[in-house]
Amino acid sequence: MKDTHLRKDPVTQRWVVISPDREAAPSLEPPTLTPALPAEACPFCMGHEASTGPEIYAEREPGSLKNGPGWWVRVVPDKHPILHIEGGLEKSAEGMYDGMNAIGAHEILIETPAHDQHWADLDGLQVERVLRACQQRYLDLRNDVRFRHVIWVKNHAMPSSVLHHPHSHIVASPFIPRAIEEEMKGFGDHVRWKERCVLCDMVRQESAEGRRIVLREGGILVFEPFAPRFPYESWIVPTEHGHDFGATRPATLRDLARAIRGLLIRVRRLLEDPPYSLVLHSSPLGEFTREEYHWHLELVPRPPQALGLEWGTGIYINPVAPEIATERLRAALE
Amino acid sequence: MKDTHLRKDPVTQRWVVISPDREAAPSLEPPTLTPALPAEACPFCMGHEASTGPEIYAEREPGSLKNGPGWWVRVVPDKHPILHIEGGLEKSAEGMYDGMNAIGAHEILIETPAHDQHWADLDGLQVERVLRACQQRYLDLRNDVRFRHVIWVKNHAMPSSVLHHPHSHIVASPFIPRAIEEEMKGFGDHVRWKERCVLCDMVRQESAEGRRIVLREGGILVFEPFAPRFPYESWIVPTEHGHDFGATRPATLRDLARAIRGLLIRVRRLLEDPPYSLVLHSSPLGEFTREEYHWHLELVPRPPQALGLEWGTGIYINPVAPEIATERLRAALE
Repeated sequence: MKDTHLRKDPVTQRWVVISPDREAAPSLEPPTLTPALPAEACPFCMGHEASTGPEIYAEREPGSLKNGPGWWVRVVPDKHPILHIEGGLEKSAEGMYDGMNAIGAHEILIETPAHDQHWADLDGLQVERVLRACQQRYLDLRNDVRFRHVIWVKNHAMPSSVLHHPHSHIVASPFIPRAIEEEMKGFGDHVRWKERCVLCDMVRQESAEGRRIVLREGGILVFEPFAPRFPYESWIVPTEHGHDFGATRPATLRDLARAIRGLLIRVRRLLEDPPYSLVLHSSPLGEFTREEYHWHLELVPRPPQALGLEWGTGIYINPVAPEIATERLRAALE
Repeated sequence: MKDTHLRKDPVTQRWVVISPDREAAPSLEPPTLTPALPAEACPFCMGHEASTGPEIYAEREPGSLKNGPGWWVRVVPDKHPILHIEGGLEKSAEGMYDGMNAIGAHEILIETPAHDQHWADLDGLQVERVLRACQQRYLDLRNDVRFRHVIWVKNHAMPSSVLHHPHSHIVASPFIPRAIEEEMKGFGDHVRWKERCVLCDMVRQESAEGRRIVLREGGILVFEPFAPRFPYESWIVPTEHGHDFGATRPATLRDLARAIRGLLIRVRRLLEDPPYSLVLHSSPLGEFTREEYHWHLELVPRPPQALGLEWGTGIYINPVAPEIATERLRAALE
């Protein structure tokens, strides 16, 4: 059987990650509460830098050394990446079907040295560091012409998670995730019809009405969208139009840090420290960039799926290739 | 606060059901195993016909009376419908936002009088009765000009389910569910590009290759799709093109009953009686009918969400209106 690779569904044109090496992963099973790794065994804790792959980015105390202690935030490769950085992009056909090798980047952003810290307890400066690390990786990854999109996903306290040390995922993909594609269509249609940005329109109407505004921090508005899919789904939106998270100015990044923290404090208090998923939505890259796109973040407390990636992005990761599934189903009655 | 109503997200144009009267429903909470109602208290068991709303359809022993015992399959209104049958369709605007009242139909198909029976143990004749009941309801509901689509969803042993007596949901909606819309775009694009049906093309390639075929029963092919989102996702497809499940001939319905049962027997054996979700995908109705659509069923064992409706159809049901969520989040720190 081939390693992890990408396949496109011919009906919906959705790319799916077929990842047979993840079959032992918990996503196959119904979600169960796994015991957290204690700090002594945690690869993300200070002093355990050798347990991760080589450091890609960090903000550190002056004088501290790469791959050693003394960092505030740290980005390392994921040990079980859903997409692999090595190799050229190879597209292939199998009759009418389209496939692609699973090229991409999958990095882990370690958000604090403190093993047990909740984002709502991070100070504003630390959240800013996290966002800056995310932005810097974003700016670096988009230089890779193989990638069409970069997404950042933060899952907190998901039932399937073993690593409870605060961290998030940065994934660069050679295709545009379905959730972003859907939004692009919406932004595009609205511009053609109204010659305005639909999210700018929403910001204006929400600001005028006020009923769905949770908080505002300088250039960032946090509101409950008019038609939320999930209870307490919240959007975190820059009030000034911009398609590119990478171009966010330091002052806006600071407002964003305050806004996220303000929202998470409220969500934690109201819903009793729920699991949540926080996803960055930004324009695709290179020739797929659309200036009509309006970058933002979406927070969903208690998302209905064990893994935040699927609902948040429309990227599905399937550990059982259909040929293997067929063999097993055929043999089931023998 | 208004009762259940529909709202359209202005970016993605997705309709969402805002259903405040379902706030106490288990979907808000993380899935937990709920104790099953015993047969004595089960409203779907024979002899308890008075516990359901008035019978909409049934297949019965000759001489037995409507709303009494003696039935083989029975369709009744859902006691907590996500969409309501009474009233005219009223569309409204709130500034740039679009809303609609929650008109639709939500019926329960009771699939057997036996409280504990698994579909894999139903005999072929009984599965055929279930499918015929579904088809008859489909044909009746589509006469209602308010409805644009009818979907049939069977959830087995979902963790959030209290009613373990075999039953499924028939939902007629005044909008086209997102999952169907996505497929329609795919069918349409393929016809324009190739002048062929994409699912007919898949049936041809799968039949020629054989590697992903689980079984075939007369005019019905069961295969694992090339790019499945979920492990053991299976498609159940008539080999002859047809956009309209309602027009299925009795012989094909019999093949379909055998095919579904054959698949479920294998899935139950291989995956140790997993929860599963089975969804009928058929063309939208009336002026939204597309002959290029190819009806089929999709089975997903162990779906990642507690409620099959969301993943299967793209219809999201949100029990907390965003205005309420905002109030509570704002007040959380007081």
